[in-house]
Amino acid sequence: MDAARLHEYTDDMTQALSIDDVDRPDITRSDGVVVEVEGAGWCQTDNHIVEGMWTDYVEQTLPMTLGHENAGTVVDTGEEVTLVEEGDKVICHPVMTCGKCRPCRLGEDMYCENLDFPGLTTDGGFAEELLTAERSVIKLPDGVDTTDIAPHADAGITAYHAVKKATRELNPGDHAVVVGVGGLGHIGLQCLDAMSATTITALDLKEEARDLAEELGAHHTVDPSSEDVAAEIDSITDGVGAQQVIDFVGRDETTALAPDIVAAGGDHHIVGYGGHVHEPSQSLVDGEFSYKGTLVGKYPELQELVALVDRGDVELRTSRYDLDDINTVAERLEHGEIEGRAVITP
Amino acid sequence: MDAARLHEYTDDMTQALSIDDVDRPDITRSDGVVVEVEGAGWCQTDNHIVEGMWTDYVEQTLPMTLGHENAGTVVDTGEEVTLVEEGDKVICHPVMTCGKCRPCRLGEDMYCENLDFPGLTTDGGFAEELLTAERSVIKLPDGVDTTDIAPHADAGITAYHAVKKATRELNPGDHAVVVGVGGLGHIGLQCLDAMSATTITALDLKEEARDLAEELGAHHTVDPSSEDVAAEIDSITDGVGAQQVIDFVGRDETTALAPDIVAAGGDHHIVGYGGHVHEPSQSLVDGEFSYKGTLVGKYPELQELVALVDRGDVELRTSRYDLDDINTVAERLEHGEIEGRAVITP
Amino acid sequence: MDAARLHEYTDDMTQALSIDDVDRPDITRSDGVVVEVEGAGWCQTDNHIVEGMWTDYVEQTLPMTLGHENAGTVVDTGEEVTLVEEGDKVICHPVMTCGKCRPCRLGEDMYCENLDFPGLTTDGGFAEELLTAERSVIKLPDGVDTTDIAPHADAGITAYHAVKKATRELNPGDHAVVVGVGGLGHIGLQCLDAMSATTITALDLKEEARDLAEELGAHHTVDPSSEDVAAEIDSITDGVGAQQVIDFVGRDETTALAPDIVAAGGDHHIVGYGGHVHEPSQSLVDGEFSYKGTLVGKYPELQELVALVDRGDVELRTSRYDLDDINTVAERLEHGEIEGRAVITP
Amino acid sequence: MDAARLHEYTDDMTQALSIDDVDRPDITRSDGVVVEVEGAGWCQTDNHIVEGMWTDYVEQTLPMTLGHENAGTVVDTGEEVTLVEEGDKVICHPVMTCGKCRPCRLGEDMYCENLDFPGLTTDGGFAEELLTAERSVIKLPDGVDTTDIAPHADAGITAYHAVKKATRELNPGDHAVVVGVGGLGHIGLQCLDAMSATTITALDLKEEARDLAEELGAHHTVDPSSEDVAAEIDSITDGVGAQQVIDFVGRDETTALAPDIVAAGGDHHIVGYGGHVHEPSQSLVDGEFSYKGTLVGKYPELQELVALVDRGDVELRTSRYDLDDINTVAERLEHGEIEGRAVITP
Ligand SMILES: [Zn+2]
Ligand SMILES: [Zn+2]
Ligand SMILES: [Zn+2]
Ligand SMILES: [Zn+2]
Ligand SMILES: [Zn+2]
Ligand SMILES: [Zn+2]
Ligand SMILES: [Zn+2]
Ligand SMILES: [Zn+2]
Ligand SMILES: [Zn+2]
Ligand SMILES: [Zn+2]
Repeated sequence: MDAARLHEYTDDMTQALSIDDVDRPDITRSDGVVVEVEGAGWCQTDNHIVEGMWTDYVEQTLPMTLGHENAGTVVDTGEEVTLVEEGDKVICHPVMTCGKCRPCRLGEDMYCENLDFPGLTTDGGFAEELLTAERSVIKLPDGVDTTDIAPHADAGITAYHAVKKATRELNPGDHAVVVGVGGLGHIGLQCLDAMSATTITALDLKEEARDLAEELGAHHTVDPSSEDVAAEIDSITDGVGAQQVIDFVGRDETTALAPDIVAAGGDHHIVGYGGHVHEPSQSLVDGEFSYKGTLVGKYPELQELVALVDRGDVELRTSRYDLDDINTVAERLEHGEIEGRAVITP
Repeated sequence: MDAARLHEYTDDMTQALSIDDVDRPDITRSDGVVVEVEGAGWCQTDNHIVEGMWTDYVEQTLPMTLGHENAGTVVDTGEEVTLVEEGDKVICHPVMTCGKCRPCRLGEDMYCENLDFPGLTTDGGFAEELLTAERSVIKLPDGVDTTDIAPHADAGITAYHAVKKATRELNPGDHAVVVGVGGLGHIGLQCLDAMSATTITALDLKEEARDLAEELGAHHTVDPSSEDVAAEIDSITDGVGAQQVIDFVGRDETTALAPDIVAAGGDHHIVGYGGHVHEPSQSLVDGEFSYKGTLVGKYPELQELVALVDRGDVELRTSRYDLDDINTVAERLEHGEIEGRAVITP
Repeated sequence: MDAARLHEYTDDMTQALSIDDVDRPDITRSDGVVVEVEGAGWCQTDNHIVEGMWTDYVEQTLPMTLGHENAGTVVDTGEEVTLVEEGDKVICHPVMTCGKCRPCRLGEDMYCENLDFPGLTTDGGFAEELLTAERSVIKLPDGVDTTDIAPHADAGITAYHAVKKATRELNPGDHAVVVGVGGLGHIGLQCLDAMSATTITALDLKEEARDLAEELGAHHTVDPSSEDVAAEIDSITDGVGAQQVIDFVGRDETTALAPDIVAAGGDHHIVGYGGHVHEPSQSLVDGEFSYKGTLVGKYPELQELVALVDRGDVELRTSRYDLDDINTVAERLEHGEIEGRAVITP
Repeated sequence: MDAARLHEYTDDMTQALSIDDVDRPDITRSDGVVVEVEGAGWCQTDNHIVEGMWTDYVEQTLPMTLGHENAGTVVDTGEEVTLVEEGDKVICHPVMTCGKCRPCRLGEDMYCENLDFPGLTTDGGFAEELLTAERSVIKLPDGVDTTDIAPHADAGITAYHAVKKATRELNPGDHAVVVGVGGLGHIGLQCLDAMSATTITALDLKEEARDLAEELGAHHTVDPSSEDVAAEIDSITDGVGAQQVIDFVGRDETTALAPDIVAAGGDHHIVGYGGHVHEPSQSLVDGEFSYKGTLVGKYPELQELVALVDRGDVELRTSRYDLDDINTVAERLEHGEIEGRAVITP
């Protein structure tokens, strides 16, 4: 079958992946599941993987098929699988977990001590078929399109995961700031609006992104290139600051906003990872705020997000591309030229 | 009366404060309380104030009497005071709060919108008498010595506040790391031991501090100058990391430990503020850990700490000094030559 | 001034209160506030007070002016009041708290050890003027009508308080059941809808109440008189049960639903108090559910509810009555003949 | 092999089980684990099962081997088992869970939708060998005796689970009440003492139990047969009540204590299930307290309890019996004549 594979790390996205002919996956474990991929989202993390930015954090053996935001139809199952059967439409949680280690037993999928991450540590979904496991698939409600929903497998639950943590701390009258209304941010914004009664302010350099934010429920928007963000948030929040800031950008200039815009006792959630956190310790102490790193969401959180999609609360802006066009997608995302999320249909 | 006052910011601790003759305080509000000071702790924050390090964070009008860790005997009360009466032995929560603003109503004293902080923003307790208010005093149980307990008013509840947050996340079998076993750290360690069934590892450069840590309940100690902290914690925690790190130092080299020693989903609490937090956003994301700034504890937390002291769970190492020796104390703390906490007895 | 006062406990609502001529209230404390009452909600609790049902729980000295859901205009203030001034439109939190006791310091207004409850333990708002205190008044946003908002002072925050606790436990895809869509229930339902993305099922014996529920956001309604509630909830929730049940009725037959309709680990919140909780201990153990008693909300929760009203998220159905018609209101509520909330305009 | 089996429900404990010769268990699933039983605790629940008290809550097919508190040595493993191997000493979590359903994914083992409970719904551990599964076994630290630790498999984690919930709400200076210092209560008391800095009061009718309580860390004991419990708790807690009550008895007279002894906002945890909860709804509302049903603890909680045992924080009083003496044990427990926990050594 065809698969888009990374052979060596490069900063040249036009050469990111090559389309290889590889064997279809075999099930070797009792809980194996093979999915015919009908949608595989391309995301910023794919660019980072191509650039070699994850080699410090995980082990990767090249060549490797990328693609960690997958949905499709079950075509084969291991002998002890009961959760799904052939023909079922599923979305795939991005990681394969053991279900036995203490983190798994605590429900903390992402901390699994025996974790595989197809598309990051093993072959992913930019291919006709994907080998995953029973603990990674969620059967979709009738009427949910596998191609449309694919990016929720990672972009969606990452945004959802951060927002869920934030909403637990937010009350009516409180303020939340969404930094960056791109692929993740525009999902996070809708989750925030659906799950809380908070006043939302969205920050983005692009006018179209700010317009989209307003359309999706933001009460205020700020343009950091022409407005003084600290002063605007101060004015919007009556000098109190935002109880929760969700930073989908994570660059030096966005993390540096925290001391000025986070309310006392509040949180600055780091979702994007384009740069550094750099602050005096005294600044965290004086404002008693936190920088909270936030990873991909858990399997049950993907179930919750699917429920939100099924309720009509979250709309995903997607555009579809053939497997052959995958490097064009990589190149265009690198230059910020993809609106919403690009989905490959292998 | 005599009062030790700051006239100008200086790095020379031998000239830090001068002993002035000032008027005794007058009660002008219905809830005013005057306390004859029997113990006033000197802390690292006093050195920072003398150096002008707080001018970016609060407004200060010099000259000002320092001293924010106070205990003594009530000598005068405003007309609507019911909580204490003349002759009562009390410890003073370091801030005076309005009790009306939303943070106060949420129980968040330290975020009070109308906060006074004697010794930081108004005259403090390095004087014979201190003007405070009913909402700042806690009547002591019989048998608790006012001089001995004074440093708990700030050092104590700051340590307690951080530890309390940490213990809420700690289970038997989990690991906590205490960074720095000085004035705050040795209190925090004892609180941690009393309030949880966690394995505690203490880090300190000084051998005496590490010995003290073991005496006070630490299960392991590490010397960062001669041992590889990350490797030691890895070994102690079976590769999992510490669920909670409480950093009483807050220097560049201690905050930099987080990615290597904090378990996935865990927290690095910033209590000390000697330096910077400086990490790639990706590091917080990948380990899903937080840097949590942590401020002075709340009034009810001081009640809880007094209960711990009354139970015999927390022992404070103090040494006593006359008001006239205050600059010697400042100088010696600057050079790390004070063991436990210095208490001024004006 | 005119005031509607209870002289003796009775089951005859036509004789509930008498309109007496009493002195206007005097401010004797520095934080006193007198409010000219423009709206005072009549609620089920008033019927219970008239019947003597609260004598086991609080001390009451008759005669007493009832009325604990008050809003109006500030006409006088004590000398240390800073939060409001004459002419300000305010809603009154139903209790007066000391701000000094440990519960107050924890933000737990309702557990204040020195609490007064105008309309329950001291003179209330069914009068031209009400004596309250600075810690009980919340300034209203422009455009909010004092008569319309009055019932939120108790009915509203009681519903809000229960719903807020419930929403902290609810995720998208989870189910909540609202038992009783009357004065409190119709507010609670709207709060639930605004603050979460939960599937809501409303139970009520009356068709109009069920219709109102659907109009206000309920996804399902059930008529307990003609449908098998347990079977319906089982079907709606795919056999899992509702994670949170909010029981605005609290009668024997509604509390008895818990073992059959609450999901494992879930809660049955008791807001109404018409009857008993009566279950085998084994039933609570086996389903690991809780019966959670829930009281009036706190002052900051009333601020949050005012924010919800200001956002347009909660609409209150009210009808207005003169002070002279107060016993008619009492009588009609007793027979379930009041739609929404009755507000007295003294 | 020999197995003690229930053939029909009876109130006559002398006839409770019969020793039958049955086949050794076979592994049919990839995750199966066979344990040679070295300790199997007999508990009150076994008496309740014999009496048929669980037939309303679970499905049981007789005859069935009882025994749900098991520990021993692994003697066989399914082909995909990696967590343990033959020869490993293990304690068995009492339930077998699927690891796939939503409750399992949330870490809520006890709510598993495909749960087996050996000794309650399938053959248990009063036999030479027990069939269980990889997700149910926990490898023991060196030096922990399998016979001694067996009762922790159910009695221990049930007590631990309730106490863990309670400690999350307890602060220094707060009060906890332990109702019943029997098999579960004496474990719960030690966990409470190790995991919090709370003042503990223990209630028990028997003098030896109260003596044991004091030995294990209780600060106060009360004899309900000769003392007025409400008055005693009122005096011990300065009129505030206990923030957390853990009721290991669950009879009408113990659950009825709640309104009088639970502090406002506190919880009465129902662990034992000998009787009913029966209170006016108004009583729960007025005191804003909860009755919290509490089930067996989760797998990670058993890990945490094993850690507590390994630290030396929890000591279990056990006595050992042969399989042939099992009905004697049943009979003696029925009459309250077993001290600590009885462990069968098949
Ligand atoms: Zn992605
Ligand atoms: Zn795992
Ligand atoms: Zn830097
Ligand atoms: Zn200090
Ligand atoms: Zn304040
Ligand atoms: Zn009311
Ligand atoms: Zn109070
Ligand atoms: Zn048992
Ligand atoms: Zn399961
Ligand atoms: Zn009854």
